[in-house]
Amino acid sequence: GCGPCRPEATLAICRGTARFLRSLNLACVLEFPLPSGRRADIAALGPKGEFWIIEVKSSLEDFRVDRKWQEYRQHCDRLFFSVAIEFPQEVLPPDAGLVVADAYGGQLLRPAPEHRLSAHTRKALTLRFARLAAARCHASIDPPAFAP
Amino acid sequence: GCGPCRPEATLAICRGTARFLRSLNLACVLEFPLPSGRRADIAALGPKGEFWIIEVKSSLEDFRVDRKWQEYRQHCDRLFFSVAIEFPQEVLPPDAGLVVADAYGGQLLRPAPEHRLSAHTRKALTLRFARLAAARCHASIDPPAFAP
Repeated sequence: GCGPCRPEATLAICRGTARFLRSLNLACVLEFPLPSGRRADIAALGPKGEFWIIEVKSSLEDFRVDRKWQEYRQHCDRLFFSVAIEFPQEVLPPDAGLVVADAYGGQLLRPAPEHRLSAHTRKALTLRFARLAAARCHASIDPPAFAP
Repeated sequence: GCGPCRPEATLAICRGTARFLRSLNLACVLEFPLPSGRRADIAALGPKGEFWIIEVKSSLEDFRVDRKWQEYRQHCDRLFFSVAIEFPQEVLPPDAGLVVADAYGGQLLRPAPEHRLSAHTRKALTLRFARLAAARCHASIDPPAFAP
């Protein structure tokens, strides 16, 4: 994840990956909660409604302890990993895309195969993405509105 | 509009209206650009994908100089006006909803009739809302990514 408890290395990769996605004209949100309750590190939405998930892995250990990414595929059209240049890429699954990023940007090393969402799932994920992004935006300009 | 050039009275009504919408579980964005290029003051998205537009009017003059709101109806399921308590409500069209707001919140005085969007238009507006909200959120946490 890219949340406040994650190490600085993860935050740097998240920031660069978000810039990379923006350069591709995808809008993204960090820490996207899926219907299962798990959170994808980054969800990205393209101009035609393409829905991508990008999992950020700061270290080999970070990758090995996390097997939840397998379920993410059913919640996106394309699944990517994003790692720092030092990460041992050979351990990553070849059927997911690969981005290498630092704090300033990123680069696509391997495209991701497409497994298109159903119209129903796409609609639900897009609505979830829209409402989450708007609420975060609202909270940033009017924090008292979100005070418990 | 609720943009930086609008008077303080408008900003106050926008803030209170946004809080009111949040209390109804609608997520909202300010200054929502429509396909026509015009900007709705507030667009709001409900948990089932309901899409509302709320036009904020700070004064009678503000209402009289603006006839563009008539076109907003085709871009939402329900259209509302939001005004301060001093506003002369009798000039507002009876076939739009009415909210009265101050800087701290708002109250519904008249519900808005429903004119449901087509599936195609709803999809396009929801995607536009999602990408706009995410980009604003991203810009707020990483301004250099959006520098010209």
